[in-house]
Amino acid sequence: MKKAVILLSGGLDSATVMAIAKKEEYQIYALSFSYGQRHNIELEFAKKIAKQFQAKEHKIANIDLRIFGHSALTDQKLEVPKDQDVDNQKNIPITYVPARNTIFLSFALAYAETIKANDIFIGANAVDYSNYPDCRPEFILAFENLANFATAVNSKFKIHAPLINLTKSQIIKTGLELEVDYGTAHSCYDPIIKNSKSYACGKCDSCLLRLKGFQENNIQDPYLYF
Amino acid sequence: MKKAVILLSGGLDSATVMAIAKKEEYQIYALSFSYGQRHNIELEFAKKIAKQFQAKEHKIANIDLRIFGHSALTDQKLEVPKDQDVDNQKNIPITYVPARNTIFLSFALAYAETIKANDIFIGANAVDYSNYPDCRPEFILAFENLANFATAVNSKFKIHAPLINLTKSQIIKTGLELEVDYGTAHSCYDPIIKNSKSYACGKCDSCLLRLKGFQENNIQDPYLYF
Repeated sequence: MKKAVILLSGGLDSATVMAIAKKEEYQIYALSFSYGQRHNIELEFAKKIAKQFQAKEHKIANIDLRIFGHSALTDQKLEVPKDQDVDNQKNIPITYVPARNTIFLSFALAYAETIKANDIFIGANAVDYSNYPDCRPEFILAFENLANFATAVNSKFKIHAPLINLTKSQIIKTGLELEVDYGTAHSCYDPIIKNSKSYACGKCDSCLLRLKGFQENNIQDPYLYF
Repeated sequence: MKKAVILLSGGLDSATVMAIAKKEEYQIYALSFSYGQRHNIELEFAKKIAKQFQAKEHKIANIDLRIFGHSALTDQKLEVPKDQDVDNQKNIPITYVPARNTIFLSFALAYAETIKANDIFIGANAVDYSNYPDCRPEFILAFENLANFATAVNSKFKIHAPLINLTKSQIIKTGLELEVDYGTAHSCYDPIIKNSKSYACGKCDSCLLRLKGFQENNIQDPYLYF
């Protein structure tokens, strides 16, 4: 069975990617990060998703990106913007974590090299996204090129980004066809925890894009909203 | 003053790179890693070197690479090879840490992006080295290419690897001319700690290459050997 490392945030996109890799008959080695994100709750969702898809292993790497700061996702002092016009974002928003996908992919590469996997999956998306530079197709290609110079001669790593050119609506449609349970896939940048339950805010960029995606599929999002 | 992020292991190569960056009048932002390395003693040396070169900041990132294992530098159960023929290494040795330089550079990129520095220095060397794939010039170029896709459009990052084509002897000569104190630059893969003092083993690949380099300069290595 072919092995693949899957970057798993616990969100809607990475849950869909898991389902795609599973359908393509990869043995799943999931990798998540405790990186000082605003709400570690997403790691609980990551664990559930890894279990649902019978991951062979699920590693959680501890890397504290708060030492660099400058992002609303890692700095509690910065506010997550709400109710923005997500279809017309021109700038990189404050929720951007500098070089996050480069860091995540470099850990995935270390993991893949040690278990002798050639395939790495990432849920990056360049259509309905938050304008993050490290979600662009040219970034994925540049990382794939790097991966083969970073490791033993004749390495042949492939970075799979199956969602890169899909709209959020198309991602959700794909996931539903593959029976992804989006009730256990978290997306919100600023969830509200009440009575030990996590509710999505419904107003951050990530919630707005997700809600629009479900609406376009004429389906109710099964996640809990505040 | 131009800012630069300098990857600082506390070793001979990165100490020399610090001196080169200082001479080129960069303001120094040093970055070291506690990554589960065999001997954290190198971080003490890194702190001394950062101080010597009046680093504006010195950050130490905690990233536990032991979760992936498979390297004698992060797994105490694996032995560091001794007395090898360092001039004729054909294979990647067991001291190789998978994707380590990719991970280190991706953190340096995050740091550089947050402080608005365009320059990153790394002490990678492709001549007198341990045959690690992520020390090759083509790796450095591939990372530079990646860096500019990973970050805001029109980014212009430069990865400086000033030692890449130098022999160990030439690196030491350069450092001595720049008044580097190699007594506080640690190289050994398997140091011996005795009475709170750190002694180099003198037998691992790193020690052998270093000793040869000093010998070729007809100078005694000021570091303590066991």
